[in-house]
Amino acid sequence: MSIDTAELPDADGPEDRPAPAGNPGWLSDDELSFVRGRMPVVYIEAVPVRLDGIGRVTEVGLLLRGTPEGEMTRSLVAGRVRYGETLREALFRHLENDLGPMAFPQIPASIVPTQVAEYFPMPGISAYVDARQHAISLVYVVSVTGTCNPRQDALEITWMSPEEALSEATLLELQGGRGTLLRQALASVGC
Amino acid sequence: MSIDTAELPDADGPEDRPAPAGNPGWLSDDELSFVRGRMPVVYIEAVPVRLDGIGRVTEVGLLLRGTPEGEMTRSLVAGRVRYGETLREALFRHLENDLGPMAFPQIPASIVPTQVAEYFPMPGISAYVDARQHAISLVYVVSVTGTCNPRQDALEITWMSPEEALSEATLLELQGGRGTLLRQALASVGC
Amino acid sequence: MSIDTAELPDADGPEDRPAPAGNPGWLSDDELSFVRGRMPVVYIEAVPVRLDGIGRVTEVGLLLRGTPEGEMTRSLVAGRVRYGETLREALFRHLENDLGPMAFPQIPASIVPTQVAEYFPMPGISAYVDARQHAISLVYVVSVTGTCNPRQDALEITWMSPEEALSEATLLELQGGRGTLLRQALASVGC
Amino acid sequence: MSIDTAELPDADGPEDRPAPAGNPGWLSDDELSFVRGRMPVVYIEAVPVRLDGIGRVTEVGLLLRGTPEGEMTRSLVAGRVRYGETLREALFRHLENDLGPMAFPQIPASIVPTQVAEYFPMPGISAYVDARQHAISLVYVVSVTGTCNPRQDALEITWMSPEEALSEATLLELQGGRGTLLRQALASVGC
Repeated sequence: MSIDTAELPDADGPEDRPAPAGNPGWLSDDELSFVRGRMPVVYIEAVPVRLDGIGRVTEVGLLLRGTPEGEMTRSLVAGRVRYGETLREALFRHLENDLGPMAFPQIPASIVPTQVAEYFPMPGISAYVDARQHAISLVYVVSVTGTCNPRQDALEITWMSPEEALSEATLLELQGGRGTLLRQALASVGC
Repeated sequence: MSIDTAELPDADGPEDRPAPAGNPGWLSDDELSFVRGRMPVVYIEAVPVRLDGIGRVTEVGLLLRGTPEGEMTRSLVAGRVRYGETLREALFRHLENDLGPMAFPQIPASIVPTQVAEYFPMPGISAYVDARQHAISLVYVVSVTGTCNPRQDALEITWMSPEEALSEATLLELQGGRGTLLRQALASVGC
Repeated sequence: MSIDTAELPDADGPEDRPAPAGNPGWLSDDELSFVRGRMPVVYIEAVPVRLDGIGRVTEVGLLLRGTPEGEMTRSLVAGRVRYGETLREALFRHLENDLGPMAFPQIPASIVPTQVAEYFPMPGISAYVDARQHAISLVYVVSVTGTCNPRQDALEITWMSPEEALSEATLLELQGGRGTLLRQALASVGC
Repeated sequence: MSIDTAELPDADGPEDRPAPAGNPGWLSDDELSFVRGRMPVVYIEAVPVRLDGIGRVTEVGLLLRGTPEGEMTRSLVAGRVRYGETLREALFRHLENDLGPMAFPQIPASIVPTQVAEYFPMPGISAYVDARQHAISLVYVVSVTGTCNPRQDALEITWMSPEEALSEATLLELQGGRGTLLRQALASVGC
C-alpha cells in the first residue's frame, strides 16, 4: 500500500491502518480495488494556511513526501471519505493525521468546497490524473493554528509565503495536476 | 428498480437503462448494492430555473413524481455520477433525461456546487436521509431555456414563482430533507 | 446621529465618533448626506456564529437594539467601509465595535462575501430597504470566539440555536429585509 | 474625461455620456471628484467567456484599448455602479456598452461575485491600484453569446484560449493589478 502513497490524493494510504471493528467504511484491498474500478471515489483535499488577525493568508503549508523511487514531492492534505463519515469528519481526520495532534485546524463553517478536482486514470479528460482511480475531490483552504508535526509518511510540512507557494518551482513539485489545483485554491483566498 | 425511484436522489433509476457496451461505470444490481454498502456514492442534483434578461430567477422548476404507494412528491433533477464521467457530463445527462431533449440547460461555468448535501441511511447524522445509501450530492442551480418534457417516470415539471417554491406547502412535498436543500439552493441566488 | 442608528446597516452610527485627524474617510454630516444622495455606499454586514470543533454552526449571535421609538429590534453587525480602509479592516473594526474587545472574530480567508444585499431608499427595487441611502452590503458569516460585550447602542448580543434564528418570530425582528438576509446567509453554512 | 479612460476600471469613462434627465446617479466632474476623494466607489468588472455545451470555458474575451500615450493595453469589461441602479443592471449596462448590442451576456443567477478587488490610489495596501480613487470592484465571469462589436474607446475584443489568457505575456498587458485579477477569476471556473 505504501507503494502508491506518493501518487495519491489519499495522503494516509487509503486503507493501510486498522479501522474500528465492524466499520463498513473500511475496505479490504480487494474490495477497494473492485470499487475503484467501478465508481468515482470521494476525497477531500485541504490547503493548510496561516492567517493574520484580519484573515489574510501569511503562510501556506505543503507536505514533503518521498516517493518509493526516492524522489521528493509536495502534496496537500488529502484522503478518502469513508462510508458513514461526514465531509467535516473526513476533513478533520485527515488534517489531524497529516498535521499531528497539536495542530488546530479551523474547519470552515461552509462545507461547500473552494474547488472541485476530478481525477481520472486516463489522461486528457481533466487537468487531474490519478492512475489508481476516478476520484472526485472536494478542496478546502483551512486555517490552521498550533504546531504541525506530520506523521510517518510525510517528512515535514513546509510553511512558505503565498508567493513562494505560487512560484513555478513549487507548483511543479506537486503531482497529478495538483500544481494547478493549489493555484486555483489560493486564488479563492486572494493569492 | 422503479420501486425505489421515488425515494432517491437518482431520478432516472440508477441503472435501469442499457449502458454502452463495456462501460465499467455500469453496475449490475448486485454490484451496486455491494458498493452502496461500502462507499459514499456521488450524485449531482440540479434546481432548474428560468432567468430574466438580467439574471433574476423568475421561475423554479420542480418535477412531480408518483411513488409506488401512489403518493405524489416533488423532486429535483438528480442522478448518480458514473465511473469515467465528468460532473459536467453527469449534470447534462441527468438534466436531459429529466427535462427532455428540447430543454436547453446552461451548465454553469464553475463546477463548484452551490450546496453539498450529505445523505445517510441512518437518520440524525445530517439533515438528509436516503435509505439506500450514503450519498454525497453536489447541488447546482441551472438556468434552463427551451421546452421541458419530462421523461417516463416524472409526470410533469411544474414551474412556479420563487415565493411559491419556498412556501411551506411546497417544501414539504420534497422528501429526504430536500425541502431544506431547495431552500438553501435558492438562497444562493437571492431568493 | 443616534436617531437613525436603529434603521441602518451602520450599527455604530456612521460618523458619530471622532476619526483620526486628517482621515479623508471621515465625513461631516453634510458631506455624508451629499454623498448618500449620489452614490451607492459600501457596507459590510456580519452574522456572528459559534462553531463546534468540526465547523458546524452551534449558535448564531444577533444584536438587540432599541429604536428611538422604544421598539426592540434585532440586527446584524454592520457598518460603512471608509475611504482608504480595506474590507477586512472594516469587517474587523465593526465586529470589534459591536462585540467588544474580548470577542475574537475569525475573519475568513476569502473576502468574497457569502451574500450581497442591495438596499434602496425606494421600496420595490430589491428585498432590502434603507430610507437613508442606496447601500451595497457585502455579507459574511464570521466565527467568533471569546466573550462578547456589546457597546453602548446595542443592549446585548443574544446567542441562539440556528433553528431559533431561522424561526419566523426571530426573522421578523430584523428590519429592512434583513430577516431574508439572515436566512440566506445561514443557508450558505448549511442551516 | 477620455484622458483617464485607459487607467480605469470604468471602461466607459465614468460620466462621459448623457444621463437620463434628473438622474441623481449622474455626477458632474466636480461632484465625482469630490466623492472619489471621500468614499469607496463601487464598480463591477466582468470577464466575458464563451462556454461549450457543458459549461467549459473555451474562450476568454479581453478588450484592447489604446492609452493616451499610444500604448495598447488589455482590459476587462468594467464600470461604475450608479445611484439607484442594481448590480445586475450595472453589469448588463457595461457589458452592452463594451461588447455592443449584438452580444448576449448571460448574467449569472447569483449576484455574489467570483472575486472582490479593492483598488487604492496609494500602492501597497492591496494588489490593485487606481490612481483616481478607492474602488471596490465586484468581479464576475459572464458567459456571452452573439457577436461582440466593441464601442468607440475599445479597439476590439480579442477572444483567446484560457491558456493564452493565462500566459505571462497576456497577464502583463492588463494594468493596475488586473493580471492577477484575471488569473483569480479564471481559477474560479477551473482554468
